Amino acid sequence: MKGLMMEYDLTIPAILRRAESLFADKSIVSRLPDRSLHRYTYADLGRRARSLAVALKDLGVQPGDRVATLAWNHHQHLEAYFGVPLLGAVVHTLNIRLSGEDLAYIVANAGDKVLLVDETLLPVIEKFRANVSLERIVVMSSTARPREGMLDYETLMASSDASRFEPREPKENDAAAMCYSSGTTGRPKGVLYSHRAIALHSMASAMADTLAISEGDVVLPVVPMFHVNAWGLPYTCALVGAAQVLPGPYLDGESLLDLFARERVTFTAGVPTIWFGILAALDKAPDRWALRPGMRMVVGGSAAPRSLIERFDKHGLRVLHAWGMTETTPLGSVAFVRSSLVGASEDEVYTVRAKQGLPVAFVEVRARGENGLVPHDGVAMGELEVRGPWVAGSYFSAPDDQGRFTDDGWFKTGDIVSIDPLGYIEIKDRSKDLIKSGGEWISSVALENALMGHPAVAEAAVIAVPHPKWQERPLAVVMLREGQKATEEELLEFLRPSVARFWVPDAVVFTDAIPRNATGKFLKSALRDRYREHVPTRI
Amino acid sequence: MKGLMMEYDLTIPAILRRAESLFADKSIVSRLPDRSLHRYTYADLGRRARSLAVALKDLGVQPGDRVATLAWNHHQHLEAYFGVPLLGAVVHTLNIRLSGEDLAYIVANAGDKVLLVDETLLPVIEKFRANVSLERIVVMSSTARPREGMLDYETLMASSDASRFEPREPKENDAAAMCYSSGTTGRPKGVLYSHRAIALHSMASAMADTLAISEGDVVLPVVPMFHVNAWGLPYTCALVGAAQVLPGPYLDGESLLDLFARERVTFTAGVPTIWFGILAALDKAPDRWALRPGMRMVVGGSAAPRSLIERFDKHGLRVLHAWGMTETTPLGSVAFVRSSLVGASEDEVYTVRAKQGLPVAFVEVRARGENGLVPHDGVAMGELEVRGPWVAGSYFSAPDDQGRFTDDGWFKTGDIVSIDPLGYIEIKDRSKDLIKSGGEWISSVALENALMGHPAVAEAAVIAVPHPKWQERPLAVVMLREGQKATEEELLEFLRPSVARFWVPDAVVFTDAIPRNATGKFLKSALRDRYREHVPTRI
Repeated sequence: MKGLMMEYDLTIPAILRRAESLFADKSIVSRLPDRSLHRYTYADLGRRARSLAVALKDLGVQPGDRVATLAWNHHQHLEAYFGVPLLGAVVHTLNIRLSGEDLAYIVANAGDKVLLVDETLLPVIEKFRANVSLERIVVMSSTARPREGMLDYETLMASSDASRFEPREPKENDAAAMCYSSGTTGRPKGVLYSHRAIALHSMASAMADTLAISEGDVVLPVVPMFHVNAWGLPYTCALVGAAQVLPGPYLDGESLLDLFARERVTFTAGVPTIWFGILAALDKAPDRWALRPGMRMVVGGSAAPRSLIERFDKHGLRVLHAWGMTETTPLGSVAFVRSSLVGASEDEVYTVRAKQGLPVAFVEVRARGENGLVPHDGVAMGELEVRGPWVAGSYFSAPDDQGRFTDDGWFKTGDIVSIDPLGYIEIKDRSKDLIKSGGEWISSVALENALMGHPAVAEAAVIAVPHPKWQERPLAVVMLREGQKATEEELLEFLRPSVARFWVPDAVVFTDAIPRNATGKFLKSALRDRYREHVPTRI
Repeated sequence: MKGLMMEYDLTIPAILRRAESLFADKSIVSRLPDRSLHRYTYADLGRRARSLAVALKDLGVQPGDRVATLAWNHHQHLEAYFGVPLLGAVVHTLNIRLSGEDLAYIVANAGDKVLLVDETLLPVIEKFRANVSLERIVVMSSTARPREGMLDYETLMASSDASRFEPREPKENDAAAMCYSSGTTGRPKGVLYSHRAIALHSMASAMADTLAISEGDVVLPVVPMFHVNAWGLPYTCALVGAAQVLPGPYLDGESLLDLFARERVTFTAGVPTIWFGILAALDKAPDRWALRPGMRMVVGGSAAPRSLIERFDKHGLRVLHAWGMTETTPLGSVAFVRSSLVGASEDEVYTVRAKQGLPVAFVEVRARGENGLVPHDGVAMGELEVRGPWVAGSYFSAPDDQGRFTDDGWFKTGDIVSIDPLGYIEIKDRSKDLIKSGGEWISSVALENALMGHPAVAEAAVIAVPHPKWQERPLAVVMLREGQKATEEELLEFLRPSVARFWVPDAVVFTDAIPRNATGKFLKSALRDRYREHVPTRI
């Protein structure tokens, strides 16, 4: 028997209606390439999103078509977040840091029809433009300078008219947005988000035990709008009426701190790399910026070392550790402190806050080891599998499921985790980065975090190198802090008290820079290639 | 084009899976009829819910069948909340305070197959048992005393076995629960909640700007589990892992305060009547109970006067005003304080907190007056219309839509409201209680709240009486506080500065008790009958 409730679709147009009717005068601030601040409101956003939908329709964009963006975080990009789905089309954010080859593949695989590109990012499209067949390229800037073979965004908007917009109500399972997973193995794979996934994810992100985003928040997503929809924050903010601050291309520590202070930011989010930059600036001049006390800083994208959380606490800023993937829209888990830990030692609480956290509502998790599902004992490691209403069920235009789904329909994350008795997930490794030594698993992430606890270490990556007896052994690649010194033996001594004996790397090599991929993660495949022949020095 | 996300149904079984996997050891405390406390955990709840599902299946209950309950708030009732939907059947909560005639109508209209009834409420079923055809009656108690023609709940559970449970995954639009609207006009009407509606409502109730229920909360629903699923709190708590405290039949101020203090309750919810009882006890002995500072108290069901909020603030307890209906699962709006009111005067903030609030995420509202939709100016009155994913789309087994739905599919609430420029809804009246005087509308609720601000007034109801010239005029029916005195002229003088001249009632009559309906609301129809012939003394 069916229930007798309304058929009400959870959609991006419904989110925008809410923002316009209740939060019309709340502000959206963008830093422009000339460093000036552009200010407008949700009322302006709604009107301009409709204008954009009209303009795109005039250009021939149909429901279901893909409209790509190549842009920083700013109001015009936000207009595409809402305007493209208003039309029933799909907003496809391209990662500006990918190679021309990858971008050409992605644009072709997605079948993008129109591209909206930042004026400052025009050099990026030259890397792939010749190899794709985009119908239109629209340049986003505030200058409206004419360019051969391209349209200008503001000129287009000026000749459009929001009042010509014909509302259409998408179904909640219709596609709304698209993002390609970074593809550290194989080709990038397209994730096609439904309206429903984004709407539910927005609700989940506002729940008290997740990110608790509220109307009173001023949210600055450092995470780029081309990384999983800026972790969904622009949609969550619109749903709850939070003010938004979009930092444009300026993501260095000082620029962000200036913006945090000036706009009274209460909530920000990004990958660990960003926070290291901010910590460095803060440590140098702790009193320079009047930040909102207790500003929440969500760290995701890769594991943050516990020392990062502790160091920000000293500045009165609250790091919240979260986990997610392109395939999970992305919020999967948040390391909030459970009530049973009230009164626990500082050490226990930090240990928990440095884990990836508890799964959010309606996201289910389990971990599978070589002998089936592993117990939640905080020790046994297995590959994290998830399911939920905002988890991808398949990839776009992919020949098969890429081996990423179980027979019973769970998504295989590729993350090797343990789950403790309280339910906290801890990422031990990416499955491809796991070191398999003599039939045992060694977590490269645990070794890296331990190494980064050494005062002389700026960054550390641990990789597997082939070994004749143990199949694989760990090798640490270390970048020291400027002006600091440490020897291989010192670092290995430093590790010994905190890890199992067989986990201690066979060698430490020092480097000036650890290569990163387009999303800022260590590019371990390059390191493995570089050090493949590294001769084990121990055991 | 469809998105490519998982098909994941939002269901009560999914909520229970989450509670069992993450919050197995969190506590559920029930006060039993002998005043002792029964304690167990979500792990126990899950196991017993499955046992109940098996037992009901053994009794012949099929998916889609209705299983009625007639019970206070306690753990066995909670087991029915989960166990019945686990089986794919519908848990139908009967209001213990309805007349035998109404209960007979409701049980027959719903087609209830099995009834679970509290031992202490057996006298209630005698009022209607002869007129309905229930297949089975199961008595919930801890005594297991055999009774002619009835089964015993604990005996049934002892012979059942959770391990025999065969999981079935309902679709999210399947029916899960049922509740009849109190029917102040016409027959009671059945609302049939889907799994989806309850699941989304649970997420919404945990959002930061609504009730913000979190894992750290200890939640005591004073609101009965037969009023709109205790406002959904048992499901919300299970989703987020909050501890639950169920007060059984003891709802007087002192009993509740004892339980608040003993169990360290952080969140409670109920109708204004309950809070008046608690205030009286607190005012009498302010230091007797060590309550959790900042305990949140949600007030709904009918409008609470501003004075209630102010008086609780003096005790360090935080009243949160909310609005909803049986037809809205029920959460529709919450009066959280918007950021634009930070720094506003105490008076402005209290004014806003005494309104019914802003619509929650994905609930859309509008108000329709005699000339169409009214502006959001805080003055114009209209009937509130709502739509959203947890709003009823039709009634169960009703011949037509009862005139309660607009042509474009919104639900007509019957509440007369104004909406201010910040979006706050304020209920001015039920449409049937509105006083229409000389072509103008007069809000009985506004007059009642103003009268209840007088120190001598305990309760006040204002009703329309027929008038030869003005069609209708307001009449105030007042119950004074024990030992207090006030004259008609004093009360009318008291009103004059705060209301329009033509709003001042034509007369005040004093009474020892104002009649209430089964949900604790003033029974104005009875008052209108009683005072129909009351001769206007003024104008």
